[in-house]
Amino acid sequence: MTEQTDPPRRRGRAERKAAAPARIVNYRHLRHPFAPQSVLSADAVAAIHEMALKLLEDLGLKVLLPEARQIYAAGGARVDEATEMVRIGRDIVAGALTSAPASIRLNAANPDRALSYEDGALIFSPGSGCPNATDRIRGRRPGSLETYEEVLKLHQSFDVIHKVGPSAEPQDIPAHLRHYAMMRGQLTLTDKPLFIYARGRGQVEDSFALIRLAMGLSEEEFRNQVWSTTVINTNSPRQIDKPMAQGIIDFARHGQMSIITPFCLAGAMAPVTVEGALVLQHAECLAGITLAQLARPGAPVSYGGFSSNVDMKSGAPAFGTPTHIRMAIATGQLARHVGLPWRSAAGSASNAADMQGAGENHMGLWANLMANATLVVHSAGWLEGGLTFGYEKFINDVEALQIIAEICQPLGSTPDDLAWEALADVAPGGHFFATPHTMERFDRAFYAPLVADLTNHGTWAAAGAKAADERATAIWQRVLAEYVPPPSSQERADRMARFIADRTAEGGAPPLD
Amino acid sequence: MTEQTDPPRRRGRAERKAAAPARIVNYRHLRHPFAPQSVLSADAVAAIHEMALKLLEDLGLKVLLPEARQIYAAGGARVDEATEMVRIGRDIVAGALTSAPASIRLNAANPDRALSYEDGALIFSPGSGCPNATDRIRGRRPGSLETYEEVLKLHQSFDVIHKVGPSAEPQDIPAHLRHYAMMRGQLTLTDKPLFIYARGRGQVEDSFALIRLAMGLSEEEFRNQVWSTTVINTNSPRQIDKPMAQGIIDFARHGQMSIITPFCLAGAMAPVTVEGALVLQHAECLAGITLAQLARPGAPVSYGGFSSNVDMKSGAPAFGTPTHIRMAIATGQLARHVGLPWRSAAGSASNAADMQGAGENHMGLWANLMANATLVVHSAGWLEGGLTFGYEKFINDVEALQIIAEICQPLGSTPDDLAWEALADVAPGGHFFATPHTMERFDRAFYAPLVADLTNHGTWAAAGAKAADERATAIWQRVLAEYVPPPSSQERADRMARFIADRTAEGGAPPLD
Repeated sequence: MTEQTDPPRRRGRAERKAAAPARIVNYRHLRHPFAPQSVLSADAVAAIHEMALKLLEDLGLKVLLPEARQIYAAGGARVDEATEMVRIGRDIVAGALTSAPASIRLNAANPDRALSYEDGALIFSPGSGCPNATDRIRGRRPGSLETYEEVLKLHQSFDVIHKVGPSAEPQDIPAHLRHYAMMRGQLTLTDKPLFIYARGRGQVEDSFALIRLAMGLSEEEFRNQVWSTTVINTNSPRQIDKPMAQGIIDFARHGQMSIITPFCLAGAMAPVTVEGALVLQHAECLAGITLAQLARPGAPVSYGGFSSNVDMKSGAPAFGTPTHIRMAIATGQLARHVGLPWRSAAGSASNAADMQGAGENHMGLWANLMANATLVVHSAGWLEGGLTFGYEKFINDVEALQIIAEICQPLGSTPDDLAWEALADVAPGGHFFATPHTMERFDRAFYAPLVADLTNHGTWAAAGAKAADERATAIWQRVLAEYVPPPSSQERADRMARFIADRTAEGGAPPLD
Repeated sequence: MTEQTDPPRRRGRAERKAAAPARIVNYRHLRHPFAPQSVLSADAVAAIHEMALKLLEDLGLKVLLPEARQIYAAGGARVDEATEMVRIGRDIVAGALTSAPASIRLNAANPDRALSYEDGALIFSPGSGCPNATDRIRGRRPGSLETYEEVLKLHQSFDVIHKVGPSAEPQDIPAHLRHYAMMRGQLTLTDKPLFIYARGRGQVEDSFALIRLAMGLSEEEFRNQVWSTTVINTNSPRQIDKPMAQGIIDFARHGQMSIITPFCLAGAMAPVTVEGALVLQHAECLAGITLAQLARPGAPVSYGGFSSNVDMKSGAPAFGTPTHIRMAIATGQLARHVGLPWRSAAGSASNAADMQGAGENHMGLWANLMANATLVVHSAGWLEGGLTFGYEKFINDVEALQIIAEICQPLGSTPDDLAWEALADVAPGGHFFATPHTMERFDRAFYAPLVADLTNHGTWAAAGAKAADERATAIWQRVLAEYVPPPSSQERADRMARFIADRTAEGGAPPLD
């Protein structure tokens, strides 16, 4: 076996090396390259769906917000006010699944960044919800406004990040004012589809108002299209808390998209078996979708699942595990069973930007490809099961996303690609470096790595023997240094300024507990 | 979004913690969990096959070994002795594809390690062919007998490594005697299917003799079943050198398996387009298979491809790239087009056991899953495009293989898995840690990580903040310390001793140039 790969010598192209690569690939709108796979039989899918309906009908779930219970009751659900339990009949769920849209356009300041949220689409959003941030220069620290804005610039700078996320929250801004900083950041530093935390009506309505102001939208223009999304995590098992329920209602009534996402860690908040955890996840998801549809029929809402397992030795959450992979693929089967686009997630429990972190994220990403997830949340930068956003991890994960984006492009074979003349041109044992077929294509034939270092060991060692996490530091620094705000950024900032100043003076909007 | 994952508190299981996990999963015989995917249309597959046949007929290939040219000529090919060019008609290729077996049993000293080499099977072999080895204790150094034997012990210790490979060659043994050490190592330190380098008839026949002696097989018993494999790398483009041609002939005549593997790096030894590189790879593969079938109809032979691209900036080989992924999937389409099981490869160009190395290997592994490769070579431990075998990389890659092996196990849903009683048992907002359904299953429900560290950041930092590569050191050290030779190891050693001593005294067998 002689598969050792000493780089062959290259000749006669030095003068072309300086030219910028001609390769341009559009990473903005991806479609899944692989057929959806299955881990459950059709019978098992039907059995899980059936048991989830039975769970909603017989066991019900606890809904802490009175207004939500009223909406469920008005829709025909059995509500016990004393215990706050809501039991939902299968006919009500069926109605909700009929009115929930199967294709949703997610608008953005830049129309070319708008997304079709539907079966077959592949949308990446970054690691989100992290209280901390870390990088190799400044170490691990609580998320701040500086971090929040830096990370948005990173999101904006890579086309393969399709939707911004609140990666590391600005915890140096008081909670009642934080949403102003978060919306201003998203609306000025990026032009991609936006995210809002559902932390009570006050913050949500402020955030909606800021989008309307920044984008110059009337109430009606805003309400008739989707300009923002939120993630609704049920409090598994079988509970929806006040901010989450209010978020579902408010987003539905304003025509904005809720992504209903039970966070079911098998063995902890969910049964220890894949199928049992799926029954719970599916039931909670259907309950959330039903609330949205009862609040406003036709409201944009996404099915969702983010399920993995805990480590049974420590109780710690694990990602990229066999259970995570299977849950993701099975969740895709259930989402297709009810005919809705859906959100999944990658993720990493690793404490470092190392082989574990890369491996966990790759397993999650590929599970999502197998599952044909519409939206892959936490696709870049997550560390510690979401407790920390890692800058170097982000850069390395973006490399994986870009490679996946490349294989989403159709290969589009033409007779010329078969290269008969080149094959006839090169003598046995020769090389193709200098054939016209190669020379015409070499600068656009292949993906150019972002952080992968393909130099040989000697060159790499002479350059400091830098591992991938070390090399990533210079990359995010360069990206931040070269960052340019999107068009109309300043105009959007100006249009929001007065509102933010006034609302701040009025005391902002404290989060709902 | 509240997807932060502080580990929930665990209660009441301390006394069970000490018990060994009850989870037992058989990783020895895997079947692909996913349907094979496509990157080429059926028309493109047919066009590539057609052009490969045209290449063999019209352009031909250079075959350096006179005996091989004679076999081709006797089979009806047009041979030009002056130029050493062989042109093979499509009827001859068609005959070879008819006589090549579609299912091959790879025997091993331990019958439970025997493998079915056929479509649908998933076989992992380790990173192979490396001149160097590296680990965090001893650094990077040329492969030696010590390294070679250590690495075989690592291969033997993980069931998910199905076939041994010559990971790091014992370069401190002179070339004319090295094959004795390599066969003795494999036959005494492992009981898995074996590998032989095709470096000329002398070494190959010595190696066959050693297998017969060690296993107690007659000439006929040996010849009628497969006890060893070799990898035949053509000298792309369009050339087969002497040792490779002789290897195909000798393995075929002795009933042993050749894995024909053009190593076509697009843009270097092959055209710069995926389709063009595939025409060349397919043609060379068919030429090798044809030689084996002409040497002995029905000879066990594997289709193979290991194709990626070079970095067009440096000429260095790249792995885990979009081109690598597409070539692997397309090669699977071509292998199924001709109806043969086939070999592919993962691999890594990284210089370190870092995120790049993990990412490249994961991309290659998942490409091979999408491609339904029968044999995935270089699946663990490759660094620097195969110039170095990394101990810590191996351990981390084995984690990925074990996770894949887990998802190869059928989920096998039962009504009990739906966990109705547990769902009814746990109050809204409660947890499933202590339900009987969990307690009965917790110690076998989930894959237990090999090297992944799931502790929280504080615990991890207090334990030295060790990254995955650092943690892997203690793991390979423990595995080597706990290594136990397979049954009958000493008997096999004893049966080989006299032959090796005699042949060594006779001067061994120098490799064929």
